[in-house]
Amino acid sequence: MKVNYLMPTRIIMGENCLSANRKLLAGLGKKGMIMTGPKSAKTNGSLDDTVRALSENGQAYALFDRVMNNPTDICVFEAARSIKAGGCDFVIALGGGSPMDAAKAAAVLALNDISKEELFGLKFTGALPLAAVPTTAGTGSETTPYSVLVDTTGPDGKSPREGGPAKRSFGSPSTFPRFAFLDARYMRTLGRDLTVHTAIDALSHAVEGMLTLRADRLSDALAAEALALLGACYEGLLNFPAVPGEFPTEIREKLLLASCIAGMVISQSGTAAPHSMGYHFTLNWGTDHGRANGLLMKPFLRWCREKEGASPVKPRIPALCAALGMELEEFFGILEKLLGKRERAAPAELEAWSAQKMKNAANTYLQPDQGEILRIFREAVG
Amino acid sequence: MKVNYLMPTRIIMGENCLSANRKLLAGLGKKGMIMTGPKSAKTNGSLDDTVRALSENGQAYALFDRVMNNPTDICVFEAARSIKAGGCDFVIALGGGSPMDAAKAAAVLALNDISKEELFGLKFTGALPLAAVPTTAGTGSETTPYSVLVDTTGPDGKSPREGGPAKRSFGSPSTFPRFAFLDARYMRTLGRDLTVHTAIDALSHAVEGMLTLRADRLSDALAAEALALLGACYEGLLNFPAVPGEFPTEIREKLLLASCIAGMVISQSGTAAPHSMGYHFTLNWGTDHGRANGLLMKPFLRWCREKEGASPVKPRIPALCAALGMELEEFFGILEKLLGKRERAAPAELEAWSAQKMKNAANTYLQPDQGEILRIFREAVG
Repeated sequence: MKVNYLMPTRIIMGENCLSANRKLLAGLGKKGMIMTGPKSAKTNGSLDDTVRALSENGQAYALFDRVMNNPTDICVFEAARSIKAGGCDFVIALGGGSPMDAAKAAAVLALNDISKEELFGLKFTGALPLAAVPTTAGTGSETTPYSVLVDTTGPDGKSPREGGPAKRSFGSPSTFPRFAFLDARYMRTLGRDLTVHTAIDALSHAVEGMLTLRADRLSDALAAEALALLGACYEGLLNFPAVPGEFPTEIREKLLLASCIAGMVISQSGTAAPHSMGYHFTLNWGTDHGRANGLLMKPFLRWCREKEGASPVKPRIPALCAALGMELEEFFGILEKLLGKRERAAPAELEAWSAQKMKNAANTYLQPDQGEILRIFREAVG
Repeated sequence: MKVNYLMPTRIIMGENCLSANRKLLAGLGKKGMIMTGPKSAKTNGSLDDTVRALSENGQAYALFDRVMNNPTDICVFEAARSIKAGGCDFVIALGGGSPMDAAKAAAVLALNDISKEELFGLKFTGALPLAAVPTTAGTGSETTPYSVLVDTTGPDGKSPREGGPAKRSFGSPSTFPRFAFLDARYMRTLGRDLTVHTAIDALSHAVEGMLTLRADRLSDALAAEALALLGACYEGLLNFPAVPGEFPTEIREKLLLASCIAGMVISQSGTAAPHSMGYHFTLNWGTDHGRANGLLMKPFLRWCREKEGASPVKPRIPALCAALGMELEEFFGILEKLLGKRERAAPAELEAWSAQKMKNAANTYLQPDQGEILRIFREAVG
């Protein structure tokens, strides 16, 4: 039996956990750079809570609120310059996956004078300490070392990248956040689509995590717990109220913890083929990351079930179904309702994407070839 | 929902994992102090593997092989002096709970010039980096920050302690091992009693962990996984072969991972009343720590079931039974067979122990008073 586990982030969850544990922030440094997007942290209460905690600690801060969805290489270098210019010695990320992923990169770049290729090649030593405050429940970035960025530029870091933008990622033990503060209050105003799509992101982490080459008994146990938590949320998600604030806090909390635990899963297991495939939807159509994974889940799982039936590998779909608490067909029914009307791609588009290298396909327990990837794409959005 | 989780140790499990991952040791320092007991590490292969890994890395080492069962304050101060005298900058612990717990204390004392009371009072900053190589499957010390020591001396550190020796413990984020290397090969020669008693130790961590005030959804999920792993071992343990080497490796591995995961549980939850109570058996009769917990488990769980039926707290025994995969009576039957003939105490002895402060009783979800503790003691060994 093999296990390889590391998840050194301290997780603190609970109402007002940031304020109640502000002394932990005091240990991070003298001046914090708060990294977030332009809007949501200002209205969901997370920015106010953070600023109050730092002020009560006597810590200074600066604000970088220009992290966009799917943050770019340009953005993280700019943030690193702001961190250095402001004399900040730690970083606090407020938001969904985008600010947290961008903050990991900026925390490295502020401490290491390196190029973009050196960043992706892990040619760095250490990073500024980082605290993560998720304000969506899906990415799990608060408990992973991963930073997923859009690489937009060529070698000079300015002119456009040949072949167009691409999603690339890095992660090392030094890019785990030091702390994750989980307070479901920050999600109170999230609307139906964002709530559902981020929940599907967490779902895809747990499901794909169980179907990777690096999955082990410990990551599977965590995946099963994430899926049990999510399983208790499907009904609530399917009946999302007209007023987001009426969505029950208990469900928000389950989604938030599920997302965090699913992050622990992929920290060990990584993700499988759909994650790489879904990046094409996000880059080309602007599809939410979680939704992109969700669109691929049914055809991918069907392919796994068919393939493992004709393969000598140990079947994994039965364990996945046990963790889901239902058979695949029932699960697909829920997923379809959550996803609603599917996007459709032009045939040539799918052929072009299938011909490209899929990094995470190599980490899948059954490795789809180009033709099989095209088939999964077609069933998803063809 | 509240969660408070920290377990920063990197867990690496697998046959020959020490040798295959020796580069990780290279990052710990220039000269390692290997801390172990006088015997087992020399015959079970763990010392040879460690020395070979360090030598291949070009790292020097020294050996402190005088850690006794239930290590004392005197022992850990002596080890710290050896570490400093030898110019060692990291520690590797090989063995069961005793060497690992002693190594945590010595790693603190080698870096902090403090008294015993300051050690237990956490008046220190940091510790030398520590790698833990468990050679029994029970303590889970490789994934906890805890060091349990026998305090034998009075204020001068030399003359006997007033009232006799007592078990005391400490732990802080800095006393988690940096690495845990889990190789079931080191357990091949463990006999029936040690295998069973250490397995019961792991069992007690998972069971008690679910019955503490600090238990949360994440620690419960880990406890359930530990109990699922242990549940797959009862039959093998009940039919332990005459030749220890014939005990199946697959069961050794399950016990080892269960123990490690149960360590993750108590890192968050701490333990409950039986742990404090069982120390009296160990200190007075020399009972193995795991066996001591096992002797108390049935009367403690019966008391919990009865008490929670008459209390407004949310019942926890149903969730425990779900995790055990059986009702308590069936579980008690297995436990009785594993424990065999019970030790018996004199009535006065039990009364004296019950009158003493039980630290972990305060962390139990239902807090037993002195009379209830006496009743549990009587049912266990009266």
